[in-house]
Order: sequence, then structure tokens, then C-alpha cells
Amino acid sequence: MRIAQIAPLHEPVPPPLYGGTERIVSSLTEELVARGHEVTLFASGESRTSAKLAAGRERSLRLDPAPLKSEIAAHLSMLDEVRRRAGEFDVLHFHLSHFQHFPFFEHIREKTVTTPHGRLDYVDLPGAYRRWPGFPMISISMRQRKPLPEANWVGNVYHGLPLDHYRMPEARERGEKPYLAFLGRLSRDKRPDRAIEIARRSGMQLRIAAKIGAGDRAYFHDEIEPLIDGERVVYLGEVGEEAKAEFLHRAAALLFPIDWPEPFGLVVIEAMAFGTPVIAWREGAMPEIVDEGVTGFVVDSIDAAVERVGLLGDLDRAKIRRTLETRFSVPRMVDDYEAIYEARTAVPDTHPTLRAVAGDAA
Amino acid sequence: MRIAQIAPLHEPVPPPLYGGTERIVSSLTEELVARGHEVTLFASGESRTSAKLAAGRERSLRLDPAPLKSEIAAHLSMLDEVRRRAGEFDVLHFHLSHFQHFPFFEHIREKTVTTPHGRLDYVDLPGAYRRWPGFPMISISMRQRKPLPEANWVGNVYHGLPLDHYRMPEARERGEKPYLAFLGRLSRDKRPDRAIEIARRSGMQLRIAAKIGAGDRAYFHDEIEPLIDGERVVYLGEVGEEAKAEFLHRAAALLFPIDWPEPFGLVVIEAMAFGTPVIAWREGAMPEIVDEGVTGFVVDSIDAAVERVGLLGDLDRAKIRRTLETRFSVPRMVDDYEAIYEARTAVPDTHPTLRAVAGDAA
Repeated sequence: MRIAQIAPLHEPVPPPLYGGTERIVSSLTEELVARGHEVTLFASGESRTSAKLAAGRERSLRLDPAPLKSEIAAHLSMLDEVRRRAGEFDVLHFHLSHFQHFPFFEHIREKTVTTPHGRLDYVDLPGAYRRWPGFPMISISMRQRKPLPEANWVGNVYHGLPLDHYRMPEARERGEKPYLAFLGRLSRDKRPDRAIEIARRSGMQLRIAAKIGAGDRAYFHDEIEPLIDGERVVYLGEVGEEAKAEFLHRAAALLFPIDWPEPFGLVVIEAMAFGTPVIAWREGAMPEIVDEGVTGFVVDSIDAAVERVGLLGDLDRAKIRRTLETRFSVPRMVDDYEAIYEARTAVPDTHPTLRAVAGDAA
Repeated sequence: MRIAQIAPLHEPVPPPLYGGTERIVSSLTEELVARGHEVTLFASGESRTSAKLAAGRERSLRLDPAPLKSEIAAHLSMLDEVRRRAGEFDVLHFHLSHFQHFPFFEHIREKTVTTPHGRLDYVDLPGAYRRWPGFPMISISMRQRKPLPEANWVGNVYHGLPLDHYRMPEARERGEKPYLAFLGRLSRDKRPDRAIEIARRSGMQLRIAAKIGAGDRAYFHDEIEPLIDGERVVYLGEVGEEAKAEFLHRAAALLFPIDWPEPFGLVVIEAMAFGTPVIAWREGAMPEIVDEGVTGFVVDSIDAAVERVGLLGDLDRAKIRRTLETRFSVPRMVDDYEAIYEARTAVPDTHPTLRAVAGDAA
């Protein structure tokens, strides 16, 4: 199949550090190529891929040192190029969140699928979608669909990890002090305060490996920093890829006590890749991602979380890893996307409302 | 003539406080209506106008208290509505800066004009423009065109002020302490440090009426605040409309020692409306806006600025006001735009490269 993958231009594909969207696009693209598809990746010019790279912009928006960059104009140019070449592809897979591509592809809407990688509860999205109804959409969790129930959801595909990048941990050393892990941005909606309270009440150490964004400094300084004592609560700062693996791998559990509608939660499955269970709040996609009592626990309160810390020893870490391999691997993710591409290209246009652009405006 | 004015959705038209673009769109719209044109204003629903208001969004992006707003999706929806109704108008005048409307109107490009109100030296703009060549553009200064020389510039229209909102000042009271004025954001590229040095070396008091944006706090704290002594350098904070008029009106001169390619500089002509001259740096549109030795001075150095302070007494404040009335009034601005609209609607499409959208992508 001739497939175009269209990534955002914020980060290279794959990204050097952060960038969940670009990481997933990379895994998907490489696996599709390995399966014999003819794939063109529209992305920043710094991307590395075995597909054909069509550079939508020489450098990614984040890494380009130019002082004045236009996110809107950069994506407009790339989308125009995709449209110009659209005839070369059987399917166009967009990984853009705010529908900027819709006006470009309304005449060939049925050849497109869109995976929005972010939350969809922006007040402007339902109104915009109603102007381009029927655009085929693929969610990354069923929960993600909630603010946009009327969209043309043609599939739900959970993210997957490349298994060989995540080796199953050796048994941990005896006598090592057990700890709970907190990983991610130290922002208010990730609720590190809940993690600290859970650790305190369960008598476990909490280790925090996290980035403090510019917008989160005041929150960190005022509400979290005073709780870091270097004993019960240890702050490790931002950690690189290798240290992160070690950090997750050796943890008794990952705490994920979020207070926002997280549409997926990549870090949760990263922990699973090391056999590490999660104690997560009942928010966003967590009830879908966590297999209760197998890969972790979903809770509604500090009390419940503390109780579950006592049950962590009952979980089988090898089984957690096996669940990851079954449910959240790259091959499974690509099976799902492939099935959708095939179904889409097999059927005729089922949405006869396609508007004639010129006719509308004349 | 049937005219659509399309404003950005960031602020209401007119804006309650800041928002140069929305203020100009308001003046233009009201004057066009007064001249008998049939005008529809696409803008935020809070706008007040004597034209027909087509609300592109119920509330403006800045005033809407919703936590999650999508600038991109909001403008997509409005632009789709403009396109749907495009047949109702003889001319569509866009006041958007980053070309988001180009893909919507390529089939009727010649019916549109675009005034970009911001700087154009974003690295992504020339590449994007090349994808929609020929879109008719109107600059707000000749300097503004510099990063985009290849665009289809069909006119240059300097901004204008509504004269009755700016009454000529009474003669200043005798014995009042003269001062130099600095007005605007306290950001590094406005160079308040230069203003302070000019005041210090010319023995004048500097009064600063300025907003400190979140991004400018560190700069203000580290580099400017230590220079504020309440005697030689006085900081008045952010001032309202009325206090601003008084502040400009009583000043010996406005200092505008900018270090960025300001495409116009509304505050400079606001000072002129009160007969107040400006001492401006040779940057951006300043050489075009300031009539040397009449409405102020354009300089390249602190030395030159200090010397010009000594010459301020030679300038005729009534003549400064008269120059404003001739060069930068709303009626003159609207004369210019009207002439462009008329020229545009009189000629056939001179750019035969208009692409057939569906044909391109098929």
C-alpha cells in the first residue's frame, strides 16, 4: 500500500527526547516499511527514517534556533505539498491535533485518516469539526472521543512500544530499598502532591524524575519543593533515556495520580515494559490502559492508593511485561492501523456530503 | 460596495484595551459604513460595530475564560464561514498575519486583499507565500515588505487615527516640570534602557507608562528596575486610555528607541495627535512615519538623541497635529483602502496561475 504519514513539525521523527506524537509516528512508519509498504513520511528534515522523507521544514520548530518561527505557516506549506502529491498515495494518515489539514483535503476526505494525539476538550474543536463533518478519525483511547462524540470515528488504536528497546529487567538486587516512582512534568494536573501523600502514608520512599517547565516553576516552588526532604521524597531532576529505564525498572510501582483527561499515558506502558505496575487515578484513559489487579490498580482516593501499595507484592512482574507485549506493542498497533487502512481503501465514499469547494464560495 | 472585513479573533473589535489590529479594523469598518458601503465584519461576537456583525466566535480568544481554546480551530471555523458567504461580497479584506486564510480563498484570490498587521520576518512566511503566489497584499509601511519582497503588493496604507477621539491639547501650564515619555511594553526590544540613558544625559525626567508582560519580568527586574529612582526615572505602571492621553499630551517628547523592525508604531502617531514629537531610532517604519524636523527626529545613537532633546523647543506642536491630520487620519486611511478596493474590483484576474484544487491533488 502507498501510505503517507504526516507528522507535526514540532520535533524530529523520532524525537531526541520528548515528543510522544513523533515517537509513535516513527514506530508506525518503520514497522510499515518493514512490512513492505511504500511509505512517505512528511516531517521535519532532521527526521531519520527508512521511509522516503519529505521534509515539511528543514528543521523542527523546537530545535530551529531562528528567533521567529510561524507554526501556522510551516504547517500550511507542508500541507500544501501533501495535497499536491496526494495522488501518489492510497491513504494519508495525519497526526495533527487541531484540524489544520481539513480545508486542504475535504475533496479527498475519504482517503485520509486522522489520529489526534492530544486531548480534545478544547472549546473550539466541536464547532470546527462540524464544518468538516465525516472526516475519518482514529482515537488513541475511547475516553479521548468523549468531547467529540459526533465525529466519524473509524477506529481506536492504542499506542505500542518497540519491544526490543525495552528489555525485561533482571531480578532486582536483594536488600535494595523499594521506592515508588513519579515520572513526567511537575505540573499541577499531574498531581505530584498526591504522589507524595501516597508515599508518606504508605511508608515508602518516593523518587521523582521530572522536568519543571517554565509555566510550572511557581507551582513547584510554592507547593512541591517544601515537601522534598531528600529522604522520604527525593527529587532526581530530569533524567535521560537510559536513567529513565533504570528508574522505572527498579521501582515498586509507578504512581500516576493525574487530574486531567490524559488521552493515553505513554509512561504507564513504559513502566509495564519493565514489569513495573502502576497505581493510577480514575481519569482519562487509565481504566482502559490498566488491567485491574494485573498490570496495576485504578483508584479514586489516597486511601485506596495507599491500600493498593500494600498489594503490589501480589502482582506478577513477568505477567505485566507479557500484557504489554500483547496489548501495547508496535506490531499490535501497526496491525490495527493496517486493518483500518485496508478497510478504508476497500470501501467507496460513504459520505456523499463532500462539498465542491469552488461551488460553495461562488 | 459590498465589503467583508475579517478580523483576528484575539480581541473584540474595537478592543477594550490593547490590540492595534482590532482598533484599526474598527476604524476602517465604521468609516466605510459611514461612507455608504455595505460592510460585514467577521470578528469575535463581543465586537461593537455599525456594520453587520458575523460572529466568528462567541467570545474573543483573550477574554473567553475557557481554559482550553484553539486559536487554529477557531480561525478555521470563521474562515470556512467567510468562504461559504464569499459570493455576497465584492471584496474580502483579511487582517490576518500568518496566511491561514490562503488555502480557503485560492480559487477567488483576486477578490481578496490581505493586510498583515505584524512583522513579516518569520522564517516560515516566504516559503508559505511562495505556495500561494499572487495573493494581493497591502503593507502598513514600505519597511514591512522587506522580508517578503516577492509578494504581490497592491498598495501601502499607513494607519490612521479617529481625529475626534484625540483633541488637540490646551497649552501646557507654565512651570510644569518637563519630561520625556516612554510608552509600551517594557520588553528588551523596546529598549527602555536607551530611553533612560537619553533622559539621564539630557537632564530630563523620564516617565515610563508601560505594561510588564510575563515574559519580560526577568528583564525588567534585572536590568530596568535598578535604574528607577522615582526622581530622574519614574515608573507609572500600566495606564488607562484617559491617563495615557494626558501622559502623551503633557510630554516634551515621546522616546521610541526601538531595536526591532516595528512595521508601523501606532503610539508614535498617537503622540503626534497631541502635538507631541517623537525621538525614534532608525528602525522599522520610523523613517517613513516621522517627518524629520517636523514631527520629531530619527536617530542612530544616544549622542544624537540627546542632541535632539535640545532641539525639541524648535518644533511647532500645532504643526505636528496638522501633519497627523494630513498623513495619519482615519479618513485618509479609508481613502487609500477604498481606492485599492475600487482598483481591484475594476480589473480582471491578472494572475492566471490559479490552481484547480481538486485537479492538483487528484
